[in-house]
Amino acid sequence: MTELLSTNPRTGASVPTGITPSTPDDVNAAAERAATAFNELRRWSRSERAALLRAMAEELESRTDAIVETADGETALGSPRLNGELTRTGFQLRLFAETLDEGSYLEASIDHAGDTAMGPRPDLRRMLLPLGPVAVFGASNFPLAFSVPGGDTASALAAGCPVVVKAHESHPLTSRLCGEALSAAATRVGAPDGTVQLVYGREAGAQLVQHPAIAAVGFTGSLNGGKALLALINQREDPIPFYGELSGLNPVVVTDAAARERAEEIGQGLAGSYTLGSGQFCTKPGLAFVPATPDGDRLVDALSGATTERPAHLMLNEGIRAMFDRGSEAMAGVDSVSELARGEAATGDAIAAQAVALSVPADQVDESLTAECFGPLIVVARYRDEKELLAALDRLEPSLTATAHLEENEAEERAGVLDALQRLSGRLVFNGFPTGVAVSWAQHHGGPWPSTNAVHTSVGPTAIRRFLRPYTWQNAPAAALPSELRDGASEVPRRVDGNLVLPDRG
Amino acid sequence: MTELLSTNPRTGASVPTGITPSTPDDVNAAAERAATAFNELRRWSRSERAALLRAMAEELESRTDAIVETADGETALGSPRLNGELTRTGFQLRLFAETLDEGSYLEASIDHAGDTAMGPRPDLRRMLLPLGPVAVFGASNFPLAFSVPGGDTASALAAGCPVVVKAHESHPLTSRLCGEALSAAATRVGAPDGTVQLVYGREAGAQLVQHPAIAAVGFTGSLNGGKALLALINQREDPIPFYGELSGLNPVVVTDAAARERAEEIGQGLAGSYTLGSGQFCTKPGLAFVPATPDGDRLVDALSGATTERPAHLMLNEGIRAMFDRGSEAMAGVDSVSELARGEAATGDAIAAQAVALSVPADQVDESLTAECFGPLIVVARYRDEKELLAALDRLEPSLTATAHLEENEAEERAGVLDALQRLSGRLVFNGFPTGVAVSWAQHHGGPWPSTNAVHTSVGPTAIRRFLRPYTWQNAPAAALPSELRDGASEVPRRVDGNLVLPDRG
Repeated sequence: MTELLSTNPRTGASVPTGITPSTPDDVNAAAERAATAFNELRRWSRSERAALLRAMAEELESRTDAIVETADGETALGSPRLNGELTRTGFQLRLFAETLDEGSYLEASIDHAGDTAMGPRPDLRRMLLPLGPVAVFGASNFPLAFSVPGGDTASALAAGCPVVVKAHESHPLTSRLCGEALSAAATRVGAPDGTVQLVYGREAGAQLVQHPAIAAVGFTGSLNGGKALLALINQREDPIPFYGELSGLNPVVVTDAAARERAEEIGQGLAGSYTLGSGQFCTKPGLAFVPATPDGDRLVDALSGATTERPAHLMLNEGIRAMFDRGSEAMAGVDSVSELARGEAATGDAIAAQAVALSVPADQVDESLTAECFGPLIVVARYRDEKELLAALDRLEPSLTATAHLEENEAEERAGVLDALQRLSGRLVFNGFPTGVAVSWAQHHGGPWPSTNAVHTSVGPTAIRRFLRPYTWQNAPAAALPSELRDGASEVPRRVDGNLVLPDRG
Repeated sequence: MTELLSTNPRTGASVPTGITPSTPDDVNAAAERAATAFNELRRWSRSERAALLRAMAEELESRTDAIVETADGETALGSPRLNGELTRTGFQLRLFAETLDEGSYLEASIDHAGDTAMGPRPDLRRMLLPLGPVAVFGASNFPLAFSVPGGDTASALAAGCPVVVKAHESHPLTSRLCGEALSAAATRVGAPDGTVQLVYGREAGAQLVQHPAIAAVGFTGSLNGGKALLALINQREDPIPFYGELSGLNPVVVTDAAARERAEEIGQGLAGSYTLGSGQFCTKPGLAFVPATPDGDRLVDALSGATTERPAHLMLNEGIRAMFDRGSEAMAGVDSVSELARGEAATGDAIAAQAVALSVPADQVDESLTAECFGPLIVVARYRDEKELLAALDRLEPSLTATAHLEENEAEERAGVLDALQRLSGRLVFNGFPTGVAVSWAQHHGGPWPSTNAVHTSVGPTAIRRFLRPYTWQNAPAAALPSELRDGASEVPRRVDGNLVLPDRG
């Protein structure tokens, strides 16, 4: 078996890693260990699982220097960004621990026995239970926060589900290092063997999602990758949930009034947002609707100027670079498209790409321009009036986000545009930029197909819900109930006989 | 186009209905009307939607006599059961209206802007929004509560989604009558045209789930029917959620101690439960584990005696009767199986089936006996010790429910058995019978595949969650926010900066 290589985007040089792709036997063994671990982990209390998550944050942080250095060597994302990503990863694990402590994620409900319009009702008690072992597919573009120790792993573990991560080929050494940190934490708190495991290689991933022991799949990656996994899952005897975070064009609309007031600020902000992380964000704004007015021209000039100053962008790997080059060339070659600006061209052996800003009349926006082009590219669509804008929005597929730049008190007047953007997205950003996805309770990271295929988020505490199933006990003796469903004072919010009741924290 | 027939199970006679299967144009038009209706319905306030649900309950109840008479003619379920089902249907619609009034189903969250460990966080506000038009497949066995005006329809409408119901061929006249009641209610409260519609015929159903305007599917029916629809949905460009409630063996375990104390009561109860509604319940207990002891013998005698007294059971339609006869004959013919008792044989032209109780040693329970046999059949598996019981449970596929009969203080000692039953089900019934699914907050009607394919219930207020998607507004002006997410006093429970806050009802 050929060992995996680790490639440095700055030099294009690859080194052997000593890691070989997982064999079918490896994958079987990992899935079966996860199933065994589940039998123990699902009995753990919320506080035990919270301790596991906190220990994971600590073990990751105690390896900060090594992780950041290794990740930087494999992704060229730079220390500040990777340090920030590690901070985010630890924050996320601790927030999920707090979510366990707080306990409302359980949706605990008690309906005492009683008479109803339909006759006597038994005593019913419901809460959410973990689904089973979860397969997680790490993303290339967030080697920490959406990879081995990322949101899918944290939310599955919070739910009580062991995790088998399919490491991304683009950062095998970072994956291994993070896996070691998570395993060390699991060992430290006495979690069962098989609580967190890694497998390597595409074939291992394909085998993993079809393994009978796997109960759900979390995936962050390309639309095509997601579709391929979904097709494999659809072949299973038992259809399991697939939570794919797949693609995004992330349209931005700038109104006349906003362009008038903030042309330069918005133009420069857009340039910063579409090139952030070399444009390798699922929330990258790929299409901006700007009025075909002199104010719009000023905005475009600012965007173009900032684009011209962009150095060549280091890309995560050769595959993404090649795909970006193909995609950006195709878009630049569309008849109705004109080039606004380019950044510095890539030179030498580095795996790098040139930032590109293109322009097109809004009435010419069609499918040749609306597929995601992952990397530092933005298309500016110039619209003459709201009718043209709405018609163009109507031709788009949904994204993770949509963004509106408008002025104070303009929201009501622009209700039609905001409504179209809402239909197209899972998060609507006002007067900002879609890159940057805060981990918090009110976050939603997900949108209608093809951005995701779920009615759940992949960021924030509510992501835990993806890996849980409801369960009801009918007329159960107290000894057979989870502690959260027993009568008496409760540590968690519960719905009792229909009424939501908060714990007495006094 | 041949018109649909309405068949009376009591006589086997069919009459023409005047209803023809929906044409492809009919289905297209219905889906498009639903899409148009959605654009209006999704803007309705919670109280407007609650009024719609209450009006539907009233319109159904004002037609009680006609609905019950028509449904009885098409299902032979009898007036008491059908009156009860109509009561349940009205109760369900009103409970969902109360759920809208209470508002916590929105999962409203506000995270105010602030500094975090990861830098400044924008203002984020999240709540759930309706998905879009929902296709509902009515079930044959609950012509009201799980059909046109049933739980799927009620929960989709509560969510704000228009519904296109594919009427079940087994009760077309009942479907039409209920559809008229729902439409009358929609008209009365000013709901848009296309809020609730019906289509008829299997081909119409197949076309419906592939229509681009349909955003989710609710289905109650057979495993094979569900698999066929899922295969069609998997062919869509956009995978939409399919919520299928499909099958159930619903195993029952009786402990030694329970058999000792309550042999006759349990035996008679089991007989009542497996023959209720002619055994045509998704929660029918199809397999009961009874100790191979003299106490177990007494239980089996009681079950057999009650079975012998059963008159021939009228069945919903000829297809179900034929399938039951084939299934029960196949099980009775298994080598290790012996017959315990049979009820009266069917005679004349009625569509009827004979109740059957079979017995098998627990160590002989295999796939020839563990598939659902829809109708009045129960298999009693006699086990010699817990080891044999656990091994047999390990060979079962999951069901909607599992049931344990045990004595006081026996729960801890039987933890292994209860644990196995939990893995196999979505609801665990203690010292009762699984038939009867109360509509309440703490209910869960759903289980691991193949009983359902969802991590959500299809009964009770939390069923609404199936037809919602999260949405987040970032730095939105108040005018662009739903009223539930604006600052100030709230009528609904919300999570504010991480803390769950109840409305001030004072």
